[in-house]
Amino acid sequence: MSSKMIAVLIALSLLASSAQAKQWPATSAEVIAATADTDWREPNPEHTLYLDINGGRVVIELAPAFAPKHVANIQQLVRQGYFNALPIVRSQDNYVVQWGDPDGTRDLGRAAEKLAGEYDRTTSGTRTAAALVDGDVYADEVGFHLGMPVARDLASDRSWLTHCYGMLGAGRAEAADSGNGAELYVVIGHSPRHLDRNVTLVGRVLLGMDLLATLPRGTEALGFYANATQRTPITQVQIAADLPEQQRERLLVMRTDTEAFAAFVASRRTRTESWFLQPTGRVELCNVWVPIRSLAQDDDA
Amino acid sequence: MSSKMIAVLIALSLLASSAQAKQWPATSAEVIAATADTDWREPNPEHTLYLDINGGRVVIELAPAFAPKHVANIQQLVRQGYFNALPIVRSQDNYVVQWGDPDGTRDLGRAAEKLAGEYDRTTSGTRTAAALVDGDVYADEVGFHLGMPVARDLASDRSWLTHCYGMLGAGRAEAADSGNGAELYVVIGHSPRHLDRNVTLVGRVLLGMDLLATLPRGTEALGFYANATQRTPITQVQIAADLPEQQRERLLVMRTDTEAFAAFVASRRTRTESWFLQPTGRVELCNVWVPIRSLAQDDDA
Repeated sequence: MSSKMIAVLIALSLLASSAQAKQWPATSAEVIAATADTDWREPNPEHTLYLDINGGRVVIELAPAFAPKHVANIQQLVRQGYFNALPIVRSQDNYVVQWGDPDGTRDLGRAAEKLAGEYDRTTSGTRTAAALVDGDVYADEVGFHLGMPVARDLASDRSWLTHCYGMLGAGRAEAADSGNGAELYVVIGHSPRHLDRNVTLVGRVLLGMDLLATLPRGTEALGFYANATQRTPITQVQIAADLPEQQRERLLVMRTDTEAFAAFVASRRTRTESWFLQPTGRVELCNVWVPIRSLAQDDDA
Repeated sequence: MSSKMIAVLIALSLLASSAQAKQWPATSAEVIAATADTDWREPNPEHTLYLDINGGRVVIELAPAFAPKHVANIQQLVRQGYFNALPIVRSQDNYVVQWGDPDGTRDLGRAAEKLAGEYDRTTSGTRTAAALVDGDVYADEVGFHLGMPVARDLASDRSWLTHCYGMLGAGRAEAADSGNGAELYVVIGHSPRHLDRNVTLVGRVLLGMDLLATLPRGTEALGFYANATQRTPITQVQIAADLPEQQRERLLVMRTDTEAFAAFVASRRTRTESWFLQPTGRVELCNVWVPIRSLAQDDDA
């Protein structure tokens, strides 16, 4: 047998073994432990925000694939220092925490004041990875794309980010183009999916949800604080790319377009941990929290 | 025409008008404003708990129709003063807050140590009021019964309380009968419906969710606090019926077996408020929060 033939045979056997599906374990902790380095990605520092409040840091990943104009406007605002020393103005129980300029007087600088809503987009090129077989109350299809929970309407072939816990949105007034990213909110309760396609979602909190979710609730309508002293000041907001590499947060997000992630979703569906007496065998979109690595990942059984 | 005939005609015309369905307005604020006193009920004080922490009060309605033995055991524990000066031992972000005896040494007195799980019940007599037409990821049918969110399996004709935000459950260890109500948890995040029928739900928080949801998160596995000083002490737990009437909280809960409630659910589905650009026209079970009266009811649009 020639060495060339041997090389071909080796290549074929490699193809065969890679075509054979890996056997994934059953529990989510085991799935995470069985992942390879290639199942994880480092968030793009250009699209990663650090929101510093109360001596703690909230790390946010922006979603330029879904809201490119809002993301660009937010980057512009952050780089102008727009958010520094502005406060958290609203905390409504089981709903959202929101920050921005309570007086509406701060200069937007080179950022746009009005932006058309980026409520949904054509699905082409936005394949819903790991589409859930479990169905959804609000949409024809749900799943994940680039680490974000998404929904899809089959008739119109449109897809959009969904209001799951930890999602970041750009608040707006009545007019469809009145949001610009200067007023931002994060979901802190049961996912208010009725807001989908009515507000532009711009990203997802990766770390620090505990800091936002435990802020005292405002007592005015919609959870706004009754007076300025109750607001939590924002120390600063930065873009990770603007910091020297050694000062950036080191974290990895599980890729959502992999067999590993499909196995993770399956583990959330089947719940084979011995504690479960009657696993539901179903999983809802917002009950799949895309794993973050290099942090204690609490099991929620 | 005799006066008797006139009386009969008037009675008939009254019957006709009452048989004509009332036209309900479209928004939830308008529906609530249009309700009659008979659309509301006072929670049974015998099944109402006051949990006092941090100078604030959490009001809980128990669900004896679904978990009679657990409710009776909890009443027994409360009346023995079992929970007084015990702490909140766990706060896990986007999941649950839990209280009980961290050392497991407190005497259960006349309360049972083991109780068979009350995970579901026959649906007979448990008509799912206001069953949602919107579907559900986890169950064949969902709706409300006696103010509580419920799900139903059609094949087995079983129904059960669901893990929506604010629901109260009796924690258990591995054994199915290891829960007894001495260890209680409340859902503070996106509804963990995978726990349905795996833990006995025993009631629902009516007021004070903000007090529980803003407790600092524990940093140990499952959100347990790393040390005792981080725990929040419980001042006392009382049954409303054990207090003089004038010392009880005055509140009303919207009945869930009325046309008014059906109209309220419809208002959450259709979202006709002018702010909405593309109302979903769907509503998920845990996105219907049964209204409480005589309190500022924040609109969450």
